[in-house]
Amino acid sequence: MKFSQSLIPTQRQAPSDAEVVSHKLLVRAGFIRKVTSGVYEFLPLGLRSLKKVENIVREEMNAAAAQELFLPHLVPIELWQQSGRADKYGKELLRIDDRHERGYCFGPTHEETICDLVSHTVSSYKQLPMNLYQIQTKFRDERRPRYGLMRGREFLMKDAYSFHSDTDDLDREYQVMHETYLNIFKRCGLACRAVDADPGTIGGSSSHEFMVMAETGEDQIATCTDCCYAANIEKATFNHAVSKVTPSEKDVVEELTPNMKNIEEVSEFLKIEPKQMIKTLIYKADESWVIVCLSGDREVSDIKLSNLVDGDDIRLATDEEIDGLTGVPVGFLGPLGMKDCIKGKMPNAKYKIIYDHSLLAVSSGATGSNKKDYHTINIDIKRDLGLDEERDVVDVSSVLADDPCPECEGNLRLMRGIEVGHIFKLGTKYSEPMKATFLDKNGKSQNMEMGTYGIGIGRTMAASVEQSHDDRGIVWPRALAPYEIHLANLDFTDEILAFTKKLYDDLNELGISVLWDDRDERAGVKFNDADLIGCPLQIIVGKRGFEKGKIEFKIRQNGEKGDLSLDGTIQAIQEKLNTL
Amino acid sequence: MKFSQSLIPTQRQAPSDAEVVSHKLLVRAGFIRKVTSGVYEFLPLGLRSLKKVENIVREEMNAAAAQELFLPHLVPIELWQQSGRADKYGKELLRIDDRHERGYCFGPTHEETICDLVSHTVSSYKQLPMNLYQIQTKFRDERRPRYGLMRGREFLMKDAYSFHSDTDDLDREYQVMHETYLNIFKRCGLACRAVDADPGTIGGSSSHEFMVMAETGEDQIATCTDCCYAANIEKATFNHAVSKVTPSEKDVVEELTPNMKNIEEVSEFLKIEPKQMIKTLIYKADESWVIVCLSGDREVSDIKLSNLVDGDDIRLATDEEIDGLTGVPVGFLGPLGMKDCIKGKMPNAKYKIIYDHSLLAVSSGATGSNKKDYHTINIDIKRDLGLDEERDVVDVSSVLADDPCPECEGNLRLMRGIEVGHIFKLGTKYSEPMKATFLDKNGKSQNMEMGTYGIGIGRTMAASVEQSHDDRGIVWPRALAPYEIHLANLDFTDEILAFTKKLYDDLNELGISVLWDDRDERAGVKFNDADLIGCPLQIIVGKRGFEKGKIEFKIRQNGEKGDLSLDGTIQAIQEKLNTL
Repeated sequence: MKFSQSLIPTQRQAPSDAEVVSHKLLVRAGFIRKVTSGVYEFLPLGLRSLKKVENIVREEMNAAAAQELFLPHLVPIELWQQSGRADKYGKELLRIDDRHERGYCFGPTHEETICDLVSHTVSSYKQLPMNLYQIQTKFRDERRPRYGLMRGREFLMKDAYSFHSDTDDLDREYQVMHETYLNIFKRCGLACRAVDADPGTIGGSSSHEFMVMAETGEDQIATCTDCCYAANIEKATFNHAVSKVTPSEKDVVEELTPNMKNIEEVSEFLKIEPKQMIKTLIYKADESWVIVCLSGDREVSDIKLSNLVDGDDIRLATDEEIDGLTGVPVGFLGPLGMKDCIKGKMPNAKYKIIYDHSLLAVSSGATGSNKKDYHTINIDIKRDLGLDEERDVVDVSSVLADDPCPECEGNLRLMRGIEVGHIFKLGTKYSEPMKATFLDKNGKSQNMEMGTYGIGIGRTMAASVEQSHDDRGIVWPRALAPYEIHLANLDFTDEILAFTKKLYDDLNELGISVLWDDRDERAGVKFNDADLIGCPLQIIVGKRGFEKGKIEFKIRQNGEKGDLSLDGTIQAIQEKLNTL
Repeated sequence: MKFSQSLIPTQRQAPSDAEVVSHKLLVRAGFIRKVTSGVYEFLPLGLRSLKKVENIVREEMNAAAAQELFLPHLVPIELWQQSGRADKYGKELLRIDDRHERGYCFGPTHEETICDLVSHTVSSYKQLPMNLYQIQTKFRDERRPRYGLMRGREFLMKDAYSFHSDTDDLDREYQVMHETYLNIFKRCGLACRAVDADPGTIGGSSSHEFMVMAETGEDQIATCTDCCYAANIEKATFNHAVSKVTPSEKDVVEELTPNMKNIEEVSEFLKIEPKQMIKTLIYKADESWVIVCLSGDREVSDIKLSNLVDGDDIRLATDEEIDGLTGVPVGFLGPLGMKDCIKGKMPNAKYKIIYDHSLLAVSSGATGSNKKDYHTINIDIKRDLGLDEERDVVDVSSVLADDPCPECEGNLRLMRGIEVGHIFKLGTKYSEPMKATFLDKNGKSQNMEMGTYGIGIGRTMAASVEQSHDDRGIVWPRALAPYEIHLANLDFTDEILAFTKKLYDDLNELGISVLWDDRDERAGVKFNDADLIGCPLQIIVGKRGFEKGKIEFKIRQNGEKGDLSLDGTIQAIQEKLNTL
């Protein structure tokens, strides 16, 4: 493609709302343009990179014997009512009424539609297993769209759904998809790893996320220094069994801690480590209360808490609510005597106390005394709280760096990543309400076992930019680059123009994609745009070099520059490309 | 692909709502499935054929130097307000509110979005011309969706938009697109022709439709027997200059025609041809009236009428309204004395009388006398109606078979077709309100000249079925077939299975696409499905033949059958394919 005939609106300034580098660079390099909050146009360069991801995904899915189809964007709301998600999905679901006031949604995911299809077209175990996928624009009405393509509202997704006659076969296909996903991201030129993840609102028994490692990633991942353990922070756990605690020899004592309300102040005053404090937080879960105790150096994981507690609306209680429940000012709460406090203030309150497994490492601990300006010290978790065994504690906190690995004797480290894919074992969560059943070998009707497998196509493209860029612009891996070669002539004499045109034609002939910057612009402008757009190999035809029988190359990734002889240029270019 | 592992739900019965053959066959052969009114799923076979059309369109558009991009489905309603279409488009526009009550539409076409893009990224004549296209799902909330993919609500479309610095350049690109479209449909294996068409609500100065010729087509086309004139019936005209009329020698006379209200009854009674009658119809256009007179054998063209008359709501007046305006009972209206009738009944009525050019051929005509049970005869259109010259008449009627061609001395014939593409010269209709301007060579700001070019991708696929099928099923042209070869083994002995598998693998290896019916089904079921699905070449491996060293082939299109030797099968198959 000739630059002069193409719509490539490069710009110096990043948009004012761009917070992350992929958003800034993809807009500046003319790959995408914002239409409205969370909704982007893919301009010609952007679409080329997007299609590269799409085609890799398609080839690998086909190689794994999945079948491509295309479901409608519009989904009758009745299908979502049947699965029960119409209410649960909340405002992210974009609802639409047609001219006859019939209700639809702009499908954010298609479990319901595909179950409806399969329930009407598959009836026998002989037709299973089946893995059906599509590559399609989805819409989720995010409350706060941001980060460009990373958290948009309208976005391109590959969504696959597999159907099985039993869980063993689902496990087998899940493993096939796991491998397929690793292949896909490897072919995209991305450093990616699969991590154990929480299934979240999609549901099901287990799930894995595929994370592109990038410092700017929204997600935090815990990985082991020694083994292959890797999990999203939402799901990661540590081995508490290694905590050896010496029993407290002293009796509990209340100490005056005037106006000291937070862990740092109290622990410094008491001359103990924050991790020896027993942090006590009170949550409201719909109409009941949850009191969470964990070691003072840790944070409660909202996801883990929501998996442990029933309730649609789980949130930290307000100071007033805590006063109403316990009569204790915030900052002086503690598990000892808490029940009596509640009995005195709100005898009919429904509540439970949850002890995080991090407490098993607390020796001679300290916590609020449930009265203003006092903390209790010398707490022995077995003697005073009755925490002795596995069953007394739960995992409701986030792991910390250096926590013991749950699967080996190594330690955890924390990294950042960008989720580009997610696979789930759904079991019969959707097949049951949607009546996706089959007759087994004995002629008995059974619910199909289901898996679902998603990849964010635009997100993968953006993740590549997050992982690979420098201060001059994007550095595309060859697999995702809009063009393999960025060709620029710096002079417009007949001879140089003829040479460049022939080079352009010859490369195209060989199936090598070339963006030819044929614009009558200064060399500096052309170099800046070439680095900003980020094609892997730059070829520059300048006057001085040409007269000496040479043209220049630059490898975008490492900045390596050099000359190529005018004889055998094509072969030299091919060789350079093959090293990338 | 193996049939047993694929989702191909063939069925014997066509859906009860299917009126046209493409709808029936595409559902029966398992290519598409209805989700809700006008909204279809593309199953694996359907998507393969759809992608074949899509890829041909993409290749030809790229070859014509158009650039692909991808605009969002969701369009902020403000853009449509800016162009003025938000109100005009009516209920076909699917409107959506997001969680913040901001208004959008699910884009049915993207003139506004692309103008907004171009207005923000193109500023100089140096950047023009530019032709930008996308292949994307559109939504139009049709009042009465029907005919399967032919008139759906959600459908795949290629929409292109070109921008130019002057009308000459627009004319040039329009011609390029005209040629490109003919190439596209030719490559799809379709008999197609371009016809002059009415631009309709899209607007602009001229347009052409691309029609796949099919008896079942919704559109009627007039073509000349002698020259290349071809036009949609909405737009087609005839040469009235060839009509030679002899002046009436008799004076007008009123004849009693008791209770004779329609052309047939009156003309039979008066012993004249219907085409000698002057049919008189009264329309209501918003708050004013339009009286249309045309020869009795013709119909008013609604499109032509709406182009001649101002008004958003143009419709035939009711009997009561006609009585209120004229005092004349329906069936006895006529142009002679009409003005006096209106003066007497509704003196302030705003009205105009339109004479169709077909009247120039009426000699000694008859029409209603504007009183019950009377018709006036011996009317001379020059003497009595003052119709003498070009300027006295308009073209407001549809052409009839055998009408004189407007461009040569031939005659028109009428055919049916399916519109699969439409190209328009828009001029500045959208660029002006959307502020898509550029600086010309003199630094002066100008509105861009625009063209727009659409192809219905799913419609093209359905049109192919309308054009090419028989009573056993679809007959795909090789270019659009989901698979080139339908391979079926009728026996499952190890030897036959091994041979079939090797044949399947070898053909795939050569890039020849094969659907292998490996199901354990009766031969009859397999043959029926093969004919229904309609791949161009069938290869059948049966026991008896195999033992004699042969397999069978069948060419779907002409039913030709024969044997292929087991030696050199691949080469023989390739040769057969090359003849298709």
